[in-house]
Order: sequence, then structure tokens, then C-alpha cells
Amino acid sequence: MNLILFQPNEVSDTDAGSAERHVTLSDARARHLLTVLRVKPGDHVRVGILDGPLGVATVRSVADDAVALRCAFDATIPPRPRVDLLLALPRPKVMRRLWAQIAALGVGHIILTNAERVERNYFDTHVLQPECYEPLLVEGLRQARDTRRPRVSIHRQLKVLIEDHLDALFPGGVRLVAHPATEKSPGDVLGHIADDKRLLLAVGPEGGWNAFEMGLFEEHGFTPAGLGRRILRTDTACVALLAVVHDALNFGSARV
Amino acid sequence: MNLILFQPNEVSDTDAGSAERHVTLSDARARHLLTVLRVKPGDHVRVGILDGPLGVATVRSVADDAVALRCAFDATIPPRPRVDLLLALPRPKVMRRLWAQIAALGVGHIILTNAERVERNYFDTHVLQPECYEPLLVEGLRQARDTRRPRVSIHRQLKVLIEDHLDALFPGGVRLVAHPATEKSPGDVLGHIADDKRLLLAVGPEGGWNAFEMGLFEEHGFTPAGLGRRILRTDTACVALLAVVHDALNFGSARV
Repeated sequence: MNLILFQPNEVSDTDAGSAERHVTLSDARARHLLTVLRVKPGDHVRVGILDGPLGVATVRSVADDAVALRCAFDATIPPRPRVDLLLALPRPKVMRRLWAQIAALGVGHIILTNAERVERNYFDTHVLQPECYEPLLVEGLRQARDTRRPRVSIHRQLKVLIEDHLDALFPGGVRLVAHPATEKSPGDVLGHIADDKRLLLAVGPEGGWNAFEMGLFEEHGFTPAGLGRRILRTDTACVALLAVVHDALNFGSARV
Repeated sequence: MNLILFQPNEVSDTDAGSAERHVTLSDARARHLLTVLRVKPGDHVRVGILDGPLGVATVRSVADDAVALRCAFDATIPPRPRVDLLLALPRPKVMRRLWAQIAALGVGHIILTNAERVERNYFDTHVLQPECYEPLLVEGLRQARDTRRPRVSIHRQLKVLIEDHLDALFPGGVRLVAHPATEKSPGDVLGHIADDKRLLLAVGPEGGWNAFEMGLFEEHGFTPAGLGRRILRTDTACVALLAVVHDALNFGSARV
């Protein structure tokens, strides 16, 4: 845990008008501070408010199972990650592992969808319930020291999603669809993307999108891009592509 | 399984002098062909020989639990992946998940090492036994359609590894050490790497290399490079960095 994250209601409405907020923790976060970080009064720890600013807290006092903190938060909120992910729903075990990794890598909006090669019963899993995935997203944010929780939306019909809803969910920016057969890397496609543009990355199921689905993506402005000839499992591909896309956005424009 | 892989002794010494080899399978590979791919006589499937060539097989006959194949192999062997990985040993559960992913992404040599922030008892796990990791490496090769099995070496002392053994294990090429604090991406460092040069990527433990270890790397020709400000878990970082490094090697020179 590289960041202690608070829910907004844990810090709001207290000490109104003051730049400093007092918070006392007595849950798993307190145990982490006490047993892993072994904090003492006067120590500083990194903190943040979910969907709010980052900050630094000073430990005021420690007890057996509680830690009192005095927090000073930044004036600005970290920017939302510029990448959105449209992902054909993988099997529940894989999706469970991906939530935290996706949040750690940085995604603004996770759009999960059906596809021909997605089994229908994957949508019935509790891995798609907020009670399951919210704590995993928060785990990823703590790891990466970010506060901006990805939005999540779940769609059971790819065609309806692409034709009727996508322009509202993703109004501008660049659309990429990952495809192993293509010769272009995301960096080639993103070479000259403007700093304020968002990027939507579509990642297919094991076995790939079918021909109809690829046609649908291309008709709706998605450019195919890939990582070379090797075929990767969905979870590996997802992490690999998000990393390459972020790298191209962060560093690519300086190189092109 | 995107590739049926044979051990060399399953195809060698038979039909010597002929370009075609006959193989009959009756194990898990046969079951995969019969129940997942549902092959019929005359169908073609992608095959390969471990550390040998790729090829195409024609199904000659199928029985309840056996498939007879006639294989034609390429004249050349796929090149060894140009990237080697020096990895601070993660905890066994994570390492178990990484073997196949590393092999799928493409690594020539996996060098596992100790570090201050690696727990000593991680080295006692059976995840470091060839009986455990060889099948996982093969699983990754089948996924990525590659035949070139990574070499594996395990070192219990980082200082001895770097000072006494590394020049023999990795005689030329470019050395990178992943570091979250650096401003440079692997692509910046690799912009002009020659096509025949190898790359060694060092990835640290959860919590990072300590200052002494970073000094050791820099003294021995490693350039720090990173993926930006976000801190990633070892397994996410490993996949993300290998993807970015391969992308820079495959596509970077065309862009720079």
C-alpha cells in the first residue's frame, strides 16, 4: 500500500474552512500503518481522497489499533488517466485479477462488453458487482498512488454499444483496436496525438474479435494496432497494451 | 493452445532423410486437438519443435484418444527473443503466474536474483524447480507460437551475480534497470539500438532496489528507465516493461 486512501465523507465537513483535516483510522489502514509501516508520532505518510486530491499526513498519535492523522491536501486533483479501455469480458477468474492491475496502470473508464467469443454466463458473475470490484480498483489506486477511480460500465451487446452508446461514452479522441495481425504499433498510430485528446483501446477476447466485430470497429473509427506477431493471453495483452499506450502518450511525442 | 509443441525426441531420428515427419499424439495435446479444435483428417494445425523450427501438420487420422499427424517443418528456427530479464525473485505465488507470461512475451534468458527486499525463503519454493517451471514456460510458448524456450538461471547473491557472472551471462548489448523515479522511458534509451544487439532488463522487488543495489547496477552499465510516476506491483511491472521494451525494439527504430 503506497497510499492511504480516504472516502470523501471521512474527511469532508470536518474542520471546514481549514486547510488541514484530522482523520482517525482504526480499520485495516490503521493496522497497515502500525504493523507494516510501523509509524510513530511525527512521521509523514502519503494520503489521498478517492476522486479528490493527494496529500501528506502527519501522524499525531498511535494507539493499539488506531492512528490519528493530520492531513494537508494538494489544491488540485490528479488528472483522470487519458486512456479508456473497452474490454471483451474475460472469464471471471481473469477479470478478478485484472481490476487492480487496470486501475494501477491508469484507466479513466472501463467499458466491458460481450462478443461472439465471450461466454454469456461470464456476465452473471459477482466479479461484475461493485461490492466485488470497487475494493479491487481501490487496491490498484493505492498501489499506483492515484485517487481517480475508473468509471465502469457493462454492456451485453457489442453492436448496440458501438452503434448507439459509444459516441456518448467516448465523445472525442483516438480509437484503437488491438489486433495481432497488424503491422502497426500503438505508438505508430499515436505519434501525433494532441495532449488533451483521450484514447480508447479495445482489447478482444481469447481467440480475438470475429470478422464482423472487426468490421464494426473499423466502421466506427477504430484503427488496428498490435504488439507484433506473438499472441498473448487476454490478461497479459491487456496489461501489455495499456503499458505501451501509456508509454506512447507519456513519452512518444517527445520522441517523434 | 495456439501451437502444438513437440519435444525434439518425439520427431527426431524418424523418417531420416525425409522433409516430413510423422507423429502420433495420445496425450493432452491429442485431447486438445480432438475436443477443442475438433480436427478431422485433412485439417492443418500449427506445430513446432521445442527450440527448433515451426511448421504445419496435416491430420492423417483421428481415433478416440489419438491423432496421427504428418508434419512439415520450416528450414529455419525462430530467432531467440532479443530481451533478457534480470528479476528480483517475487513471492512464489507471483512467480508461478509469471513464468508463462514471461515466455509468451518473449525472453531469451531469465536471470532470477536475490536482493535486500527479497525474502530468503522464496528461494526454497518448488516454483524454482524445473519440474514446476518448464511446463509453464512451454505453456507460454504455445500461447505465443514460439519454440524458443528461455534459459533460466538462479542466483542467491546479487553482488556476486553482477560483479562476477553477468559479463559471461550477458556479454554485449544494452542494460536497463527499471526505476520508477526516472524520467526516461525504455524507448528513449533504446532509440538507436542496433538490430543485432541484445537487451537486458532488470526489474526489482516490491519496494524497489535499495540505494546500494541501484549503485551496483549503474556501476555495471545499467541505465535507469521507467514507465512514469505510477508504482506497479512486480508482476504488472514485469509484463508492462517487457511489452514496452519489445515495442521499442520492434517498432521504435522505424519511428525515431
